[in-house]
Amino acid sequence: MTDSPGAESRFGMTELGDLPEDLRERVGAIAAKSGFVPNIFRALGHRPAELRAFLDYHDALMDPPSAATPAGPSPSGGSSPNAGSSPSGGSSPSGPSGNGPSSSGLSKAERELVVVATSAANHCLYCIVAHGAILRIRSKDPQIADRVAANPWQADLTDRSRAIVDLALALTRSPELFGDGDIAKARDAGLTDDEIWDVGAITALFAASNRLAHLTALQPNEEFYLMGRTPRA
Amino acid sequence: MTDSPGAESRFGMTELGDLPEDLRERVGAIAAKSGFVPNIFRALGHRPAELRAFLDYHDALMDPPSAATPAGPSPSGGSSPNAGSSPSGGSSPSGPSGNGPSSSGLSKAERELVVVATSAANHCLYCIVAHGAILRIRSKDPQIADRVAANPWQADLTDRSRAIVDLALALTRSPELFGDGDIAKARDAGLTDDEIWDVGAITALFAASNRLAHLTALQPNEEFYLMGRTPRA
Amino acid sequence: MTDSPGAESRFGMTELGDLPEDLRERVGAIAAKSGFVPNIFRALGHRPAELRAFLDYHDALMDPPSAATPAGPSPSGGSSPNAGSSPSGGSSPSGPSGNGPSSSGLSKAERELVVVATSAANHCLYCIVAHGAILRIRSKDPQIADRVAANPWQADLTDRSRAIVDLALALTRSPELFGDGDIAKARDAGLTDDEIWDVGAITALFAASNRLAHLTALQPNEEFYLMGRTPRA
Amino acid sequence: MTDSPGAESRFGMTELGDLPEDLRERVGAIAAKSGFVPNIFRALGHRPAELRAFLDYHDALMDPPSAATPAGPSPSGGSSPNAGSSPSGGSSPSGPSGNGPSSSGLSKAERELVVVATSAANHCLYCIVAHGAILRIRSKDPQIADRVAANPWQADLTDRSRAIVDLALALTRSPELFGDGDIAKARDAGLTDDEIWDVGAITALFAASNRLAHLTALQPNEEFYLMGRTPRA
Amino acid sequence: MTDSPGAESRFGMTELGDLPEDLRERVGAIAAKSGFVPNIFRALGHRPAELRAFLDYHDALMDPPSAATPAGPSPSGGSSPNAGSSPSGGSSPSGPSGNGPSSSGLSKAERELVVVATSAANHCLYCIVAHGAILRIRSKDPQIADRVAANPWQADLTDRSRAIVDLALALTRSPELFGDGDIAKARDAGLTDDEIWDVGAITALFAASNRLAHLTALQPNEEFYLMGRTPRA
Amino acid sequence: MTDSPGAESRFGMTELGDLPEDLRERVGAIAAKSGFVPNIFRALGHRPAELRAFLDYHDALMDPPSAATPAGPSPSGGSSPNAGSSPSGGSSPSGPSGNGPSSSGLSKAERELVVVATSAANHCLYCIVAHGAILRIRSKDPQIADRVAANPWQADLTDRSRAIVDLALALTRSPELFGDGDIAKARDAGLTDDEIWDVGAITALFAASNRLAHLTALQPNEEFYLMGRTPRA
Repeated sequence: MTDSPGAESRFGMTELGDLPEDLRERVGAIAAKSGFVPNIFRALGHRPAELRAFLDYHDALMDPPSAATPAGPSPSGGSSPNAGSSPSGGSSPSGPSGNGPSSSGLSKAERELVVVATSAANHCLYCIVAHGAILRIRSKDPQIADRVAANPWQADLTDRSRAIVDLALALTRSPELFGDGDIAKARDAGLTDDEIWDVGAITALFAASNRLAHLTALQPNEEFYLMGRTPRA
Repeated sequence: MTDSPGAESRFGMTELGDLPEDLRERVGAIAAKSGFVPNIFRALGHRPAELRAFLDYHDALMDPPSAATPAGPSPSGGSSPNAGSSPSGGSSPSGPSGNGPSSSGLSKAERELVVVATSAANHCLYCIVAHGAILRIRSKDPQIADRVAANPWQADLTDRSRAIVDLALALTRSPELFGDGDIAKARDAGLTDDEIWDVGAITALFAASNRLAHLTALQPNEEFYLMGRTPRA
Repeated sequence: MTDSPGAESRFGMTELGDLPEDLRERVGAIAAKSGFVPNIFRALGHRPAELRAFLDYHDALMDPPSAATPAGPSPSGGSSPNAGSSPSGGSSPSGPSGNGPSSSGLSKAERELVVVATSAANHCLYCIVAHGAILRIRSKDPQIADRVAANPWQADLTDRSRAIVDLALALTRSPELFGDGDIAKARDAGLTDDEIWDVGAITALFAASNRLAHLTALQPNEEFYLMGRTPRA
Repeated sequence: MTDSPGAESRFGMTELGDLPEDLRERVGAIAAKSGFVPNIFRALGHRPAELRAFLDYHDALMDPPSAATPAGPSPSGGSSPNAGSSPSGGSSPSGPSGNGPSSSGLSKAERELVVVATSAANHCLYCIVAHGAILRIRSKDPQIADRVAANPWQADLTDRSRAIVDLALALTRSPELFGDGDIAKARDAGLTDDEIWDVGAITALFAASNRLAHLTALQPNEEFYLMGRTPRA
Repeated sequence: MTDSPGAESRFGMTELGDLPEDLRERVGAIAAKSGFVPNIFRALGHRPAELRAFLDYHDALMDPPSAATPAGPSPSGGSSPNAGSSPSGGSSPSGPSGNGPSSSGLSKAERELVVVATSAANHCLYCIVAHGAILRIRSKDPQIADRVAANPWQADLTDRSRAIVDLALALTRSPELFGDGDIAKARDAGLTDDEIWDVGAITALFAASNRLAHLTALQPNEEFYLMGRTPRA
Repeated sequence: MTDSPGAESRFGMTELGDLPEDLRERVGAIAAKSGFVPNIFRALGHRPAELRAFLDYHDALMDPPSAATPAGPSPSGGSSPNAGSSPSGGSSPSGPSGNGPSSSGLSKAERELVVVATSAANHCLYCIVAHGAILRIRSKDPQIADRVAANPWQADLTDRSRAIVDLALALTRSPELFGDGDIAKARDAGLTDDEIWDVGAITALFAASNRLAHLTALQPNEEFYLMGRTPRA
């Protein structure tokens, strides 16, 4: 007997070939790029209408046209990440805030930072591991995901990243206390209303996503554990 | 100076005429039936892709083809509630579980019960008031929404309704503790795996919805406060 | 089987005719005005000495001579509300703070606001519904009770009402943290020491009242659910 | 500068001579027996109607005619403790449950046990110290108050005392979760419905009392700290 | 049957004579001075290596060479308290901060204050009673331990003592929230970095010690309950 | 500006060469084996007596003579891990419980499992990352640390591992609730009293260790992040 999880999901998995055609194509494209089918799609696949809406919501927030688009797999959506448009190397390595044109809203790395912070506060294994992998890749920082996952409240971050994470956390565990003060702090840190919306909406989407993963006791694909941990050659 | 809220939403409202055509039609149909545009659509309208995904997700869970469809407005979605198919008066008064054919999963009243319970635990004004109205209508019980909203943990319910609410609550505030024991209790109470999924997924969707309402400080339309409080002639 | 509560109280009810004479007269006067006997009196009636002390404490705080006295029933006390002395129609609708002469301490509407806020934080069905009704009547605002009950921490209120509610909430769930800072904030908002005492003492009384209702699983009278929801002609 | 509290109460003290005559007599009788005026009376004295109701409520629950009446001062009420009727010394020291005739409901020591447990959970200095003193005297156990005050959840008690304390704690900090299961556990431990009511009602009264003490930052009289710590000759 | 604890520790006790020689001498010296063997040593005695490390850690923090050394027993360590070097009677009674040369870091009374505050927040009976006794002795204040034990968050203390206790509490129950702000507040109150370290390290050590006592359900020696409650002649 | 932490510890670091000779040798041996000096030793080094006691306590619990001793670095102690005695490859990969002779108490992997679980519940970055690395090595499971760190309450483990983790968690965040029931559950799962002590004492030690890391904002050495993530050739 081992400590490895016995099942990937409490309610069974739907394989790629058993999805309706539009979803098969959409998830297939992600799998082709990632090299594997992220388990979340297999766990939601028996409810195609829900999976479709989930993917649409995810793409609208995590892969919007306005955000910079570095290459990389998508753990729970990202059906159109336009691999190849990756920014050709900022000269200095940087945190999430350095990724993508900050003038056009949250960078993709910052969006993943919101996901990892809120998933950490909700103790969601799948989302921490899968989106932690993407955060490592998009931020080019192999340690940031572990640092935020261990303690999102006090992880040492840039002022902008801290403001983003604080806003997400304020909405995550005690949303009834969220108020004008939280908005004011975010604005004081330089976040635009559009960025505040993005942080709040991503937090909301992953409040749902985290709970779907808890409902299904969803296990991350093995591949996610190692992605982005070593600098690419 | 009054205690009335000064604004309906923190980030402004988008009126029906300013929505893209597909959303204008979809939300317009709801407004036609309800007699007003539920504020959630106006608050999300400036992000059409998000609103579209939200509506799709909502309809997949709250208005699925398999659930019974009594007449009534839809507070945050429900673009195709097929008004008119309302069950022609059960002879005995009943709780949510009595509404619709129980053999085909959760009734629509039971789905609203999940929404009110999880929104109560999250202290979400908009969702409590708007979905409380629908719950009153669908359950034909003018008090159940206030009772569940005041104390979802101990509201006096039928065994089946209690099992549904307990399952939702287990996933709402401390999702990291959700486990096999919660699933087992739901099964012991007679819930099928499909119904357990529905309860969990609706809880997840409104974990998101509640947080969007907190993010925007969304106010319920006045109409919702009174709907379903008096027996229809 | 229905979701309606099967019993009004866990420990039985004492009817008006079975009360000692002084209590029969006192509760009878309330019933005459309200049109029904509020269930709290029936639930406490088998312990006349406790009911008598409870009524005395209630009247001292909720119906003091110094507070304005609009007409209306009394959900859990109010044996001498002097019906008829109702203020002759303020022209502009207003919040609790507008009710009664603010120079002489908390208005009666403000006192009910404290009750609804603390009962909401304690998830007390009876007190939310019964005192929510009175709050609607005394504030002439048909929505304020639902707004405060759903989320007392963030309900949109006037500055004075917010200060009152914040003071009550500080003492409700974590009284060990109550300190000089809470007093200072209340004073900064313009509350006098007498008003601070009133807020604190009402919060204390309903900390007791809420627990008596939880102890007995007390159900509100049906009449309370609808009172004050529509403007009087 | 010292760590001694600078003031006995946040809102001033009313001395015995400044109370209305009935209260002066009533509190005076307590002071005569105790040798000092318990500070709670001085702190509430500027609101005679509230103090009167508080005393009545206290006496109804803490000094009912049916409970055994050993000698001893009364920290926050007890205007008629009938000193002299003290049971003539059981040979073996015993817990609260051994004090007084168990057939007629909670003993006075058990009533004080409820007060100390609920006040400990609420971190109320005045009530822990004042009622801890009475508990020591009534139980003839010089350590029980410190043990319960330090950790009411796990203090080592007889089964009956544990059931009493567990019932009180269930209602103290999360009253919204109080339910049939708590009642059933108390009954299984042999408590009668009358005793369950007493535990619940005392817990409720001290939910109020604890908050009045927090509101006023009330300091215990010095005398209480030492009372009952050494066996009487 | 009584409410007295039936056993002193869940895992048995090791008597002085059964300890390895070095521990027998070390604990024996404490016992000689105190007049009894503090139960913590008997409870840990079956694991000599752990007891040895615990004593070393304790002495390093609670009895450092730099701190003032009044006479008195040591409840859970203190193998070399240099009895006799007691300060020759400060003329004015004072709080913990007045004990010992403040220029050389925390006084011994202040160290005990940290222990009582953190043990109170952790509801640890043994540590509250045993270290409460030492705190009374070292601070020459017979009430401070009961005041801090009842409510460490709001006990009325000098500014310096309050800063010390607040720092300890910040690290006790929600250590993941401990941050630069807590450090800044301590510095603003005049604590040196060395003192901040001491407060933090003592809090950490008693986070362990409290849990060992909870693990073993450790009972305090009877002697501790009364020590320091009356002024010495 | 980056999201990388600016400092390794809030109170400075002491380098190997600046330690007293005994500690220099002891920590030096660990560094020689690991290839680096774990930051915890550098952060505690300015207080040699405390570091010495900490190392002794750590070694007594984490590297006791009775436990199996596979090779591997020691993140916060482990001055005598007898590298080389590593068990020569169990053929089947297994959980912590499979590591070392279970007849002689907790295996070393199980001891690290306790550390990771309690550190996860306390959100301690240093301990999660450093001991997560050791857990991966000792359990030969590259994912177990991430799974337990993300959600110790529901991580999918063997029954024995689950009992160990549940016992640790019961003592970690709400130690005042720890009671006979927790002990009984551990015994029912087959843990001996000696093993229960080990789990409890390790939990206690890391309650201290986690808080020292929070006090100092201690950063893990970079090396720990990657250790044990890939199977050794």
